[in-house]
Amino acid sequence: MENNHTIAAISTAMAESGIGIVRMSGEEAFAIADKIYKNKKGKRLSDQKTHTIHYGFIEEEGKVIDEVLVMLMRGPHTFTGEDTVEIDCHGGVYVVKKILEACIRNGARPAQPGEFTKRAFLNGKMDLSQAEAVIDVIQSQNDYALKSSLKQLRGSVKEKISDLRNKIIYHTAFIESALDDPEHISIDGYGNVLKKETKEIIEEIETLLKTADDGRIIREGINTVILGKPNAGKSSLLNVLLGEERAIVTEIAGTTRDILQETINLQGISLNIIDTAGIRNTDDKVEKIGVDKAKDYAKEADLIIYVVDSSNDLDENDYEIMKFIQGKKSILLLNKSDLERKVTKEEIKKICKEYNIENIPVIEISAKEEKGIDRLEEIVKEMFYHGEISFNNEIYITNIRHKTALERAKDSLMKVIESIENDMPEDFYSIDLMDAYETLGSITGEMVGEDLVNEIFSKFCMGK
Amino acid sequence: MENNHTIAAISTAMAESGIGIVRMSGEEAFAIADKIYKNKKGKRLSDQKTHTIHYGFIEEEGKVIDEVLVMLMRGPHTFTGEDTVEIDCHGGVYVVKKILEACIRNGARPAQPGEFTKRAFLNGKMDLSQAEAVIDVIQSQNDYALKSSLKQLRGSVKEKISDLRNKIIYHTAFIESALDDPEHISIDGYGNVLKKETKEIIEEIETLLKTADDGRIIREGINTVILGKPNAGKSSLLNVLLGEERAIVTEIAGTTRDILQETINLQGISLNIIDTAGIRNTDDKVEKIGVDKAKDYAKEADLIIYVVDSSNDLDENDYEIMKFIQGKKSILLLNKSDLERKVTKEEIKKICKEYNIENIPVIEISAKEEKGIDRLEEIVKEMFYHGEISFNNEIYITNIRHKTALERAKDSLMKVIESIENDMPEDFYSIDLMDAYETLGSITGEMVGEDLVNEIFSKFCMGK
Repeated sequence: MENNHTIAAISTAMAESGIGIVRMSGEEAFAIADKIYKNKKGKRLSDQKTHTIHYGFIEEEGKVIDEVLVMLMRGPHTFTGEDTVEIDCHGGVYVVKKILEACIRNGARPAQPGEFTKRAFLNGKMDLSQAEAVIDVIQSQNDYALKSSLKQLRGSVKEKISDLRNKIIYHTAFIESALDDPEHISIDGYGNVLKKETKEIIEEIETLLKTADDGRIIREGINTVILGKPNAGKSSLLNVLLGEERAIVTEIAGTTRDILQETINLQGISLNIIDTAGIRNTDDKVEKIGVDKAKDYAKEADLIIYVVDSSNDLDENDYEIMKFIQGKKSILLLNKSDLERKVTKEEIKKICKEYNIENIPVIEISAKEEKGIDRLEEIVKEMFYHGEISFNNEIYITNIRHKTALERAKDSLMKVIESIENDMPEDFYSIDLMDAYETLGSITGEMVGEDLVNEIFSKFCMGK
Repeated sequence: MENNHTIAAISTAMAESGIGIVRMSGEEAFAIADKIYKNKKGKRLSDQKTHTIHYGFIEEEGKVIDEVLVMLMRGPHTFTGEDTVEIDCHGGVYVVKKILEACIRNGARPAQPGEFTKRAFLNGKMDLSQAEAVIDVIQSQNDYALKSSLKQLRGSVKEKISDLRNKIIYHTAFIESALDDPEHISIDGYGNVLKKETKEIIEEIETLLKTADDGRIIREGINTVILGKPNAGKSSLLNVLLGEERAIVTEIAGTTRDILQETINLQGISLNIIDTAGIRNTDDKVEKIGVDKAKDYAKEADLIIYVVDSSNDLDENDYEIMKFIQGKKSILLLNKSDLERKVTKEEIKKICKEYNIENIPVIEISAKEEKGIDRLEEIVKEMFYHGEISFNNEIYITNIRHKTALERAKDSLMKVIESIENDMPEDFYSIDLMDAYETLGSITGEMVGEDLVNEIFSKFCMGK
């Protein structure tokens, strides 16, 4: 996909709303806008000053498509670094599409997902870690995620990585110089200096790596699966947590056939809750798919919430779930505390012990009467908040690509230490230092191939 | 709800996208923006020229919420006529909400749905028919609807109604003057003149009213219900029409429990297709709800598409449907033409005759092999396109409120004719002429109360 053609895309979400935006970026953006933008005074858009707003109509072949405001911004002082036009139109799905089509018929090509940001990166407006932060800002679902991604957008990761790379290149340069000019530069005893400083760099990388687990939870939320046999009250629980009636909840066992996923915020941390079909053996084809999916999701989940119907005796379905959650982070909810109970907290704790899940927190709740939910929220926070997360100075690594690169850079630096300890020749240090330098460079995009760049931006939403 | 407080709302759709917009309108819009907008040069937004764009950050208590572009537009040359600020931020649901909250904490109040357009109307930027066209443009789902609502937005209905009102007020004024000053102004024989001209006005109104039926179809599309007993292939048909797999389609009877509605475009006209649970007697609670809903929708539908499984014998479920669709606009699809058939086109036509639905078009299709669909599309167009709809000079009445007002104005004018024919005193004419004048004024919003205005704008989407 060529990188100099003028691109166009709908940059707002495709649903009825007050305003929709079609964005164009590239050399031809103003020329294309001139063809389709008309106003009563007959002024040409391309003659106007940068960063100005113009009222008028988008027309094609004399036919008005919409009444609009057009924003004109000249490169390089734009997001992409290129000439940019934003057409603010009525926020209807059909009309926004018509305007995009007019842009394309007049010379723009449809942008790929993330292509505006990719151009910002290619034009040197931001490094790769900042470009990646753009989509993280958009996908933020809580305060921590937003703060962390904004910091990254403003260059926190870029600066930290630059700092580490500068230290590494200093040593590489020194070693190379000494090898080139041994008469004037001595590297006697340099191994000890390098060892000490490499260890410091490794420690800095390790500190960053430690933030990566919290980073994923910050960014993506806690993946949570609600398990329980049919009619235990899983959907009702989800509705209480969501505070609204989203799932169809009825008294017929096996109603929840599709997997529902909903995200709720618990004071800053997101819980991605997957409601599942009741776990049970079933011959119903549609439902069977749901049950299989539920088990798949539960295997990968960060947290399992196991709902027990305390108004009924436990049966083999419960025992199967208990076996299933062995060794997993789980919470047991003894639901229907409003009804006469057949299973008490003490009894269930005893049974849990038999199934080697004696440490599972057991909470009595009534999803129907919304009782006990506070306690559930507290327990979740205790399990996942490892102390308060602050954003004063820490940099959080929230991107798996960055984490992998840091791990690889660390490995290369460990080899440097190993070479020093084994009294290997100095050029050995140099090779591994350069490996670490390049690997860290992949985070900021200084040493990356086109394939990786394309892959990264393909995960973006359209129009950004 | 006071009309002078500065209002704020999210004007883009609430889903992940490239760009989100928070809009503020009112006297305090610039002052509030000054509090939360920061840039490196320290320039104050309120000091900037109108219709300019500014890069910077939205901050509260020293904490950055997002990196943004801010659009500054001074009243009265804005959509609302008031000072307006648009904050273009990252299009994430969470971050857009945070920015709206910052606007509200700093003095704006949340806008009601449609409140920006309501202000445009109250500030004389547009009449009521134009304001109503704003939401029609947004909701347009096809070319005819968009063109028709844009014409209305640009004043077509307003001009036509003004023209009719001017004619009426001329006669009223003449009669009043003559009654006031009978010595100088004679109204002898004026009844005949007035009768002729009133008839002409009535004819113009009737022409407008005739467009109202087409108007609804243009605006809203043809409400279509697909009926047929379980497993006849209703969901498969819907999927073929939609061109994608949206509904869950399985071979288990009774899968489609919820009502699905999807809109497809047939060369400019929209078909709103409601897929329903199979019509059959059922004891399954969830499914029962679906069946009842299906019948309710079918009663109100513009078109019923009745799908018959030609690979199985007809049964009492089919006969029930045949009874149900008597007298309704319907099309019968003989589906599964790819399988060995138990019911032929001739047989079904014979049975249709027995059920008094002999004029129903019968089309053989295979939803599975996507055969016969073209013919269905042709028949639908023949049934609903009454000649090509053009938008050269015609004004289409697409709004039910306008239609009702036109009908009432017509009634008043008929009374004028009646009074003339019955030789009633002239002040009788005058009263009915004024009634017609005021009723027509309600279309453009010149004679409307606050309640009606509020009701109209409450149907708008948020942020417009």
